[in-house]
Amino acid sequence: MNAEIIAVGSELLTPQRMDTNSLFITDQLNVLGIEVTMKTIVGDDRSQLTSVIAAAVKRSDVVVLTGGLGPTEDDVTRDAVGAAMGLGQTYSNEVEAQILARFQRAGRKMAENNKRQAMVLDTAEVLPNERGTAPALWIDYDGRSVMLLPGPPNEMKPLFVGQCIPKLKAKMPPLVIRTRFYRVAGMGESDVDQLIAPVYTKYANPVTTILAAPSDIQLHLRARCAEAEEAERLLAEVGGPIEELLGDRIYSRNGDPLEAAVGNLMRARQVTLAVAESCTGGMLAERITGIAGSSDYFVGGFLTYTNAMKSLLLGVDAELIEKHTAVSEQVAVAMAQGAREKTGANFALSVTGYAGPGGGTEENPVGTVFIGIAHAAGAQAKRFKFFGDRMRMRQMATQTALDLLRRHLG
Amino acid sequence: MNAEIIAVGSELLTPQRMDTNSLFITDQLNVLGIEVTMKTIVGDDRSQLTSVIAAAVKRSDVVVLTGGLGPTEDDVTRDAVGAAMGLGQTYSNEVEAQILARFQRAGRKMAENNKRQAMVLDTAEVLPNERGTAPALWIDYDGRSVMLLPGPPNEMKPLFVGQCIPKLKAKMPPLVIRTRFYRVAGMGESDVDQLIAPVYTKYANPVTTILAAPSDIQLHLRARCAEAEEAERLLAEVGGPIEELLGDRIYSRNGDPLEAAVGNLMRARQVTLAVAESCTGGMLAERITGIAGSSDYFVGGFLTYTNAMKSLLLGVDAELIEKHTAVSEQVAVAMAQGAREKTGANFALSVTGYAGPGGGTEENPVGTVFIGIAHAAGAQAKRFKFFGDRMRMRQMATQTALDLLRRHLG
Repeated sequence: MNAEIIAVGSELLTPQRMDTNSLFITDQLNVLGIEVTMKTIVGDDRSQLTSVIAAAVKRSDVVVLTGGLGPTEDDVTRDAVGAAMGLGQTYSNEVEAQILARFQRAGRKMAENNKRQAMVLDTAEVLPNERGTAPALWIDYDGRSVMLLPGPPNEMKPLFVGQCIPKLKAKMPPLVIRTRFYRVAGMGESDVDQLIAPVYTKYANPVTTILAAPSDIQLHLRARCAEAEEAERLLAEVGGPIEELLGDRIYSRNGDPLEAAVGNLMRARQVTLAVAESCTGGMLAERITGIAGSSDYFVGGFLTYTNAMKSLLLGVDAELIEKHTAVSEQVAVAMAQGAREKTGANFALSVTGYAGPGGGTEENPVGTVFIGIAHAAGAQAKRFKFFGDRMRMRQMATQTALDLLRRHLG
Repeated sequence: MNAEIIAVGSELLTPQRMDTNSLFITDQLNVLGIEVTMKTIVGDDRSQLTSVIAAAVKRSDVVVLTGGLGPTEDDVTRDAVGAAMGLGQTYSNEVEAQILARFQRAGRKMAENNKRQAMVLDTAEVLPNERGTAPALWIDYDGRSVMLLPGPPNEMKPLFVGQCIPKLKAKMPPLVIRTRFYRVAGMGESDVDQLIAPVYTKYANPVTTILAAPSDIQLHLRARCAEAEEAERLLAEVGGPIEELLGDRIYSRNGDPLEAAVGNLMRARQVTLAVAESCTGGMLAERITGIAGSSDYFVGGFLTYTNAMKSLLLGVDAELIEKHTAVSEQVAVAMAQGAREKTGANFALSVTGYAGPGGGTEENPVGTVFIGIAHAAGAQAKRFKFFGDRMRMRQMATQTALDLLRRHLG
């Protein structure tokens, strides 16, 4: 089965706004085995929308419309569907009562133009909207399924998941879906792909998807089969060798980002962490504390952006900085040791480097970052070279620091 | 003139990827006064793409296609345009020579399938691509302009701006464009809109656009006129009252984010800054140091996530915390004072609060944040109440802290 998605709204044709509803809808449809073959974004223009809908219901098994169900003259989706599919509209007292009740619960008066939302297309099934005044409509049309959904994501999502997906599922051959998920640190997308492509490209089922962020690769395997056993067997057949190839570079099997995975390890081992950040300027701590409950293991740390602060706050010997520069293995080690000693945490991470665009030396150009770790058994630092803009290099540095800690906790 | 944008590529129909090229293209077209009335995203499917193009060239003055110009069998844009518009293709030795030269400069061998990219649609003008092997094509067709652009943004953008926009501009009545830009802190979108709507809604020219992020509103005024003087006059007519209404809540007139605007103030006044962060966990410093050159004024600071660290690193009296709790005006003041004293910076900002989802008290529920500032003349703190998820509340808190500092520097 093929689907197409039509997003309605002139605001979606400005440089500032995108149709993001379709990503959610696509994901839900793909899980059922329905592929999206086209997406269209149309303004609040009745005749243009009518011609788009007329073409869609000729070529696609499933047509999902979002937006344009509001109470104003600008909201033309229902009229356009009627015109394109030759359906009349009837006023529904039942829907009016639902809209009215909604207004009464909110202690507000229903505006006259909200009555437009009580018009129902002939043959359409009304899907009640718990979060807004515009009900969704479902139409079975010549063997195809057409659905009209409100545009606000908080209304669209529960309607689509709760009411449309079950109806679509009933039309599909019964299938079970099983998934595996891996997140990988310390490798680029092309390196991961080169390593595992010989495994997964042999299989159309499960479908393997690779998603890349700086130094963070997500792998998603999805098997669709008539029987759960068969789906699990296929996942093991593809996932097993992938796990073997990636080994301990896999840091998460449940979708957790690295800072959550490392946090869980710290909580389990009952250890605490402090940081000393120079070029990342707070991003490492910001990521760690972005996880709710991080106070279980994160105590705090130091932002030592200048050489003077490295000495003053962390006790790094000024002569050591003079001799090796602030971006050096020695200073990274001393920063980590200083942070650990000053806070009494079990572990301390340090980051010092040139995030650019200025700075850097011949020996250590922009992108050079030293990452240090201090723990009960001592302290070490490693040199890394990252590429990209300031933001990307800081992301790579924090990811690498978290992964270094993960390997010490593993 | 109306335009429509067609993005080609099956990867753009997955839940993970979006067509973002169209935002850039829309912005460029809008500046010329060309409105985008439809966007379509199609997979690498020759027949479906052909029918989309055939419909587009019937209804739109400008049709912009992106993607599907690569060297593989999957790349079907050129063939589909030919089929939809009845144009043949001819092999161009000149284009082949350009592609070949590109490979030679990179020290790589040209693959046989790259020769497909030397096929040129009849009547099309070849627009050379400095950054990739696929040249763009421009077709004048029945009074309409159709352009085929490569999908990678770093190739598409210079081709579109450097070659397509000048050709489109030549077709438009001569107009000058003048803009004004404001960024506003400390107000929500609806408050800003309610305040200034009586001014800007009276004018269709200039066009006023409002963009909202947590506690950060961007206003964009764009006037299009035959004469520069007239455009400036209109901008003053709308911009003047808007500036008066918003007053010192406007922090930037050039698009700089708040951390850059505040940084420029600090650099100009030759003052330095330190921070003491609890609930924002590094985000405040991360924002400040995200600006290149921030070492001119930012010295560093303290991440004091636990009560113990507030005492140990900042010297906040443990009894003060015991008495007032860590989320209090008194502790925020003491944190800012401690950070200023320990670092010797001219200014220090502190943030302590409940970012949720856990924590909070009856008096100070989740979302309560105290922001403190210490300077030569003393120290103060203020209580704020933010709403939303953990990330949003942290963004609001950092924005508010930066704005507090701005007002002290202003």
